[in-house]
Amino acid sequence: MKGVIYGISPDVKIVDITHEIPAQDVRTGSIALWRAVPYFPAGSVHVAVVDPGVGTARRPIAAKLGDQYFVMPDNGFITPMLEDAESAGEEIIIVHLDNPEYWLDTVYTTFHGRDIFAPVGAHLAAGVPITKLGTVIHDPIRKPLPRPQKTEQGYRANILVIDIFGNCSTNLRVAQVPNLAKTTLKIAGQSIHGIIPSYGHRSPGDLVAVTDSEGFVEVAVVNGSAARTFGIQLDDPVEVFFDE
Amino acid sequence: MKGVIYGISPDVKIVDITHEIPAQDVRTGSIALWRAVPYFPAGSVHVAVVDPGVGTARRPIAAKLGDQYFVMPDNGFITPMLEDAESAGEEIIIVHLDNPEYWLDTVYTTFHGRDIFAPVGAHLAAGVPITKLGTVIHDPIRKPLPRPQKTEQGYRANILVIDIFGNCSTNLRVAQVPNLAKTTLKIAGQSIHGIIPSYGHRSPGDLVAVTDSEGFVEVAVVNGSAARTFGIQLDDPVEVFFDE
Amino acid sequence: MKGVIYGISPDVKIVDITHEIPAQDVRTGSIALWRAVPYFPAGSVHVAVVDPGVGTARRPIAAKLGDQYFVMPDNGFITPMLEDAESAGEEIIIVHLDNPEYWLDTVYTTFHGRDIFAPVGAHLAAGVPITKLGTVIHDPIRKPLPRPQKTEQGYRANILVIDIFGNCSTNLRVAQVPNLAKTTLKIAGQSIHGIIPSYGHRSPGDLVAVTDSEGFVEVAVVNGSAARTFGIQLDDPVEVFFDE
Repeated sequence: MKGVIYGISPDVKIVDITHEIPAQDVRTGSIALWRAVPYFPAGSVHVAVVDPGVGTARRPIAAKLGDQYFVMPDNGFITPMLEDAESAGEEIIIVHLDNPEYWLDTVYTTFHGRDIFAPVGAHLAAGVPITKLGTVIHDPIRKPLPRPQKTEQGYRANILVIDIFGNCSTNLRVAQVPNLAKTTLKIAGQSIHGIIPSYGHRSPGDLVAVTDSEGFVEVAVVNGSAARTFGIQLDDPVEVFFDE
Repeated sequence: MKGVIYGISPDVKIVDITHEIPAQDVRTGSIALWRAVPYFPAGSVHVAVVDPGVGTARRPIAAKLGDQYFVMPDNGFITPMLEDAESAGEEIIIVHLDNPEYWLDTVYTTFHGRDIFAPVGAHLAAGVPITKLGTVIHDPIRKPLPRPQKTEQGYRANILVIDIFGNCSTNLRVAQVPNLAKTTLKIAGQSIHGIIPSYGHRSPGDLVAVTDSEGFVEVAVVNGSAARTFGIQLDDPVEVFFDE
Repeated sequence: MKGVIYGISPDVKIVDITHEIPAQDVRTGSIALWRAVPYFPAGSVHVAVVDPGVGTARRPIAAKLGDQYFVMPDNGFITPMLEDAESAGEEIIIVHLDNPEYWLDTVYTTFHGRDIFAPVGAHLAAGVPITKLGTVIHDPIRKPLPRPQKTEQGYRANILVIDIFGNCSTNLRVAQVPNLAKTTLKIAGQSIHGIIPSYGHRSPGDLVAVTDSEGFVEVAVVNGSAARTFGIQLDDPVEVFFDE
């Protein structure tokens, strides 16, 4: 893919966001990109290839959401970025990539990442207008992330991200918590009292709740792995109680 | 290696093709590069360091094959690229890297990647003619890949590549198969009828044969690992029968 | 972090030295950088984030050591680079990063790598003088590496680095060994006679001592893993005997 990109757009800068997404896990890939996008400069082109439907009728798409570009299969991956753009009232253009003029000459059915998404991304980076790449569409596939549910005493949240350290982030934003010190979390049979600023405020091995790097409530073991220690998995429920 | 390269040739672009080659596995490294080279622009310099003989009498070499450059140990790694260049009638220049003027001042016996191959690659990228880097040779070590054997009913092929998903590619090109639908593969005690365009045409868990990303016949489990499920290993035989 | 860096300093070149440092292992990270630094061109900015104390009172720092720049938490990581600069009589400037003008607008308590270290590194690369980034300090935290101890017959050394191949490097420099052929090493109940130039001078499976890629004595198994085969771990003692 990088050879293709440099061949089309030699002055581009390429960043690998991650190669650690579990195979075929569209949602985990989507969340990883969603959390990284706000830190990229205007005009960045994000090429995302988690593509279990490669070579089938699923559409390849490109999107302009505000000042960021996206190239990916139409399998729901775009959802959280699209919802944010809608909430913010940003410009939204989505096209079905049906113009093979911007693809490699030979397209293999098992690697559209290299043969369609990489060249399209390189052409976007080189300044080709997105509407030249295909037909505008308004019905991309959406797979919304689970949202925390309001309860009588707080929220029922879910684990949305488990990072390489075994830290487990929820879908509840810290901004939704009125008093960090006076909050109790229940997960995996454990209770955590208070949300603290960072790991080093407790002792190694302690189970803690902190603010994660994008402002969500995270469950972690200091210098350890919460996921491994307590068997926490994606989507596991987290009961959040506001103590008063 | 990258620090060395940027020190010599600051404007170069560096691409990591892979760091996942099993230790000392020259053939797997060679195949990975061979499959990637056609996608890189003219003038690319490919530095390959799978080098179990580092610090022994094995020669360091550089090659110009058509419009692509290569820098690597002389241990057979060059073979498939060289054979392709010969078949295509391309320009071929191979030199024994015996001119230390283009190496680092201190060469450690255990890391020629950094001390010889990286600086030589950077000098090539910066425009130094290949013939300045050493003495022209005509006898690089060759280790040809196994080729599929014609049988009465089709081919006896072999598994040549197992990727990170557990997909298993053979050495048989799809172009050698007269009728994809009317072909049967036998591997690991299993039979597969028909070669389909891509994974998503069958159900998760199904064992299928598809066209891989470089045009070879590949055996895969949809959304799974054929290698792990059926214990498939490199070099395993695949019997291919043309049904009529 | 890379999105942040390119947003501030678009023409910078980014190199990933390693993402394989065990979680929270400041010393292993520090040694990896220390061994790589001499191969980077003057003016390089090294951003190192092994940061178990993120979000606590530990200081973020930047340093100019000779012609190289460093940005990292003040947790001892700087020690071997600083000691080398002191030994060489190089210019040394260290600042406590207390000027938020060069940070991201929002700093999360759990990812200073992205919110403080990356933007500071990008500003340094873009030419901001280091003294603008914070207050000069003279008391960075130091955690010196263990040094080999002179014994009657040679040295008592320690394993300092275990690489991805399972090769085990010591803290004894080959330059401290008077006669490589007439040296005996004892480690993990094994004896090794002689320090040889490289792996390929012995047979696969042999336990050998070689000169590693930065000039230290290394224990290795040819085409195998010394660490796994003999259960060698970081800090394990290595008795080195000069035979005459």
